[in-house]
Amino acid sequence: MRTVEWSSEKQALQLIDQRLLPSEFRLAYCHTYQETADAIRTMVVRGAPAIGAAAAFGMALAARQIATNDRQTLLDFLENEAAPALKAARPTAVNLAWAVDRVLAAARKTQGSADDVRQAVLEEAQRIADEDVAINKRMAEYGATLIEDGDTVIHHCNTGALATVDWGTALGVIRMAHEQGKRIHVLVDETRPRLQGARLTAWELSQYGIPYDIISDNAAGYFLRTGQAQKVFVGADRVARNGDVANKIGTYMLALAAYDNGVPFYPVVPTSTIDLSLAHGSQIPIEERDPEEVLAIQLRGRPVVPADATARNPAFDVTPARLVTAIVTEEGIVRPPFEVHLADVVRRAQQGE
Amino acid sequence: MRTVEWSSEKQALQLIDQRLLPSEFRLAYCHTYQETADAIRTMVVRGAPAIGAAAAFGMALAARQIATNDRQTLLDFLENEAAPALKAARPTAVNLAWAVDRVLAAARKTQGSADDVRQAVLEEAQRIADEDVAINKRMAEYGATLIEDGDTVIHHCNTGALATVDWGTALGVIRMAHEQGKRIHVLVDETRPRLQGARLTAWELSQYGIPYDIISDNAAGYFLRTGQAQKVFVGADRVARNGDVANKIGTYMLALAAYDNGVPFYPVVPTSTIDLSLAHGSQIPIEERDPEEVLAIQLRGRPVVPADATARNPAFDVTPARLVTAIVTEEGIVRPPFEVHLADVVRRAQQGE
Repeated sequence: MRTVEWSSEKQALQLIDQRLLPSEFRLAYCHTYQETADAIRTMVVRGAPAIGAAAAFGMALAARQIATNDRQTLLDFLENEAAPALKAARPTAVNLAWAVDRVLAAARKTQGSADDVRQAVLEEAQRIADEDVAINKRMAEYGATLIEDGDTVIHHCNTGALATVDWGTALGVIRMAHEQGKRIHVLVDETRPRLQGARLTAWELSQYGIPYDIISDNAAGYFLRTGQAQKVFVGADRVARNGDVANKIGTYMLALAAYDNGVPFYPVVPTSTIDLSLAHGSQIPIEERDPEEVLAIQLRGRPVVPADATARNPAFDVTPARLVTAIVTEEGIVRPPFEVHLADVVRRAQQGE
Repeated sequence: MRTVEWSSEKQALQLIDQRLLPSEFRLAYCHTYQETADAIRTMVVRGAPAIGAAAAFGMALAARQIATNDRQTLLDFLENEAAPALKAARPTAVNLAWAVDRVLAAARKTQGSADDVRQAVLEEAQRIADEDVAINKRMAEYGATLIEDGDTVIHHCNTGALATVDWGTALGVIRMAHEQGKRIHVLVDETRPRLQGARLTAWELSQYGIPYDIISDNAAGYFLRTGQAQKVFVGADRVARNGDVANKIGTYMLALAAYDNGVPFYPVVPTSTIDLSLAHGSQIPIEERDPEEVLAIQLRGRPVVPADATARNPAFDVTPARLVTAIVTEEGIVRPPFEVHLADVVRRAQQGE
């Protein structure tokens, strides 16, 4: 079962609801683009590649919501109503806009009836989803060459099958190396505030039979400084032209600690995550989410914070390119100077399409 | 009410039980040195200065536990039974050994009967507790000169009244600046895994009327990199001769992020936390605590991690001296070269005793 897929039976977008995992496995269905935007906003579905695919299917749902036989009316609705709503659901991951724009382009390219456009939109969404799985496996093959037998690697957030349509990015690399017979131990950053590491990555690793230990995010520096970790692998939500990497909050501090100890730091990203329109990471919009995500923590069934406590909750940060050893993509491993080599892989990926 | 104090009424050590704060305020009493060691180990009392004072009173309890009229028998018991048990309760904070050794020295110096020794031990413990409050206020006066009106400061763990006998170290600096009329905003690292920031520091700041926001530890780098914090203040559990600082896990990554953005990083420590016998921080023993502290996290009353999850839980890390801007002590603000200036302040403090 994929994290994000089209249900022919229900004629709806089917998602694995990630908010309740691992204590409860539940499927969620979106029947409209508005429900899809909500599911992205509330993190029923999360992870840059997964929300890209979900938004693509959201466009397919939108195309069915407007009862028109006029091709142009349908295109206008997709472009002016559905696309902006889906893109606005979360601002940082560029995959969302990338997928919506790709579906829009496919719609515009389609001549014929409104129903032909509807069909083209669904097919393009399906193609995005299928390609995501194939791309992840290609990234995993490249990335696995960076892992040596016996390595302990640190991993931040969740970048596995649950963050993508299937297989995963950074966690996909770890999984591939494991399937190749390399012995790996994973130090799983719990990833406050939403605990995607402790909840989702630990659950995936348990299923794959890969040994791991959960650590508080605070502890990564200790393991790096005491020589207990040899590599760091993360995903990303947007990579700027110069190689600056926006990813889940905490990635920057992790990258600093890796750099300070000479440990390689590898973001694993499909080329759809690379945004050549932005010169630097400082131009990437950073989402600040509900403070309640920070304040909701409990121990022994009790709240932890004072009743009147307030919080700040930025969801992402930007790791400057100088801390990045190399970026793993489906077109190969990109090393500095990123300014040159990122543009190269994006070009190659677009030519391959 | 002090965090650590002698109860004349109960003839016992009275502690504010910090495990249940802020949802429940409870006092705990120790009647033996073994109970005192347990209270330190299980973190009924925590914070380097507080556990130092608690251990000193633990020695006073030990002196009453052995029913002897022989001075030497009493001294042997204190030295060979009580002192090692109390020192072993937690390995990283040197204040524990410092306080126990100071009480032992007072005991040995005391001529006369076993009861005279008992009296001297209790008086020395009381002196340590009283001095802690006075020392904290002196540190706070020095440290407050580093804070400018309008500053936002990042603070890690809890270093307030609850981490000391009273007043606090790093948080004491912030409190002093606030009482001097400076406007301060505090970004409170929640401090996983035991959440001393979200639980205790937030609670103290609420009581002092100092505005704050709790942040996940992951987010400190974001606020530093975006220019939203001007200073970082932390406590410490042990400072080596060269200025390497052992403190609550996560401090090293916080210091890296401060350094990377040119933001001053200030540990605030009584001279009793400086261990001139260790040349480097790598010689400081780092306690690794029960993984359950990491795994016990809950959301919506439910466990977060898979049932078979494992964890690692180092409680401290070492921040190299090169990342430390200055160290605030009761003898003044110590700047590099720390190798020279730390020895100076320790000498001054010992001469002042």
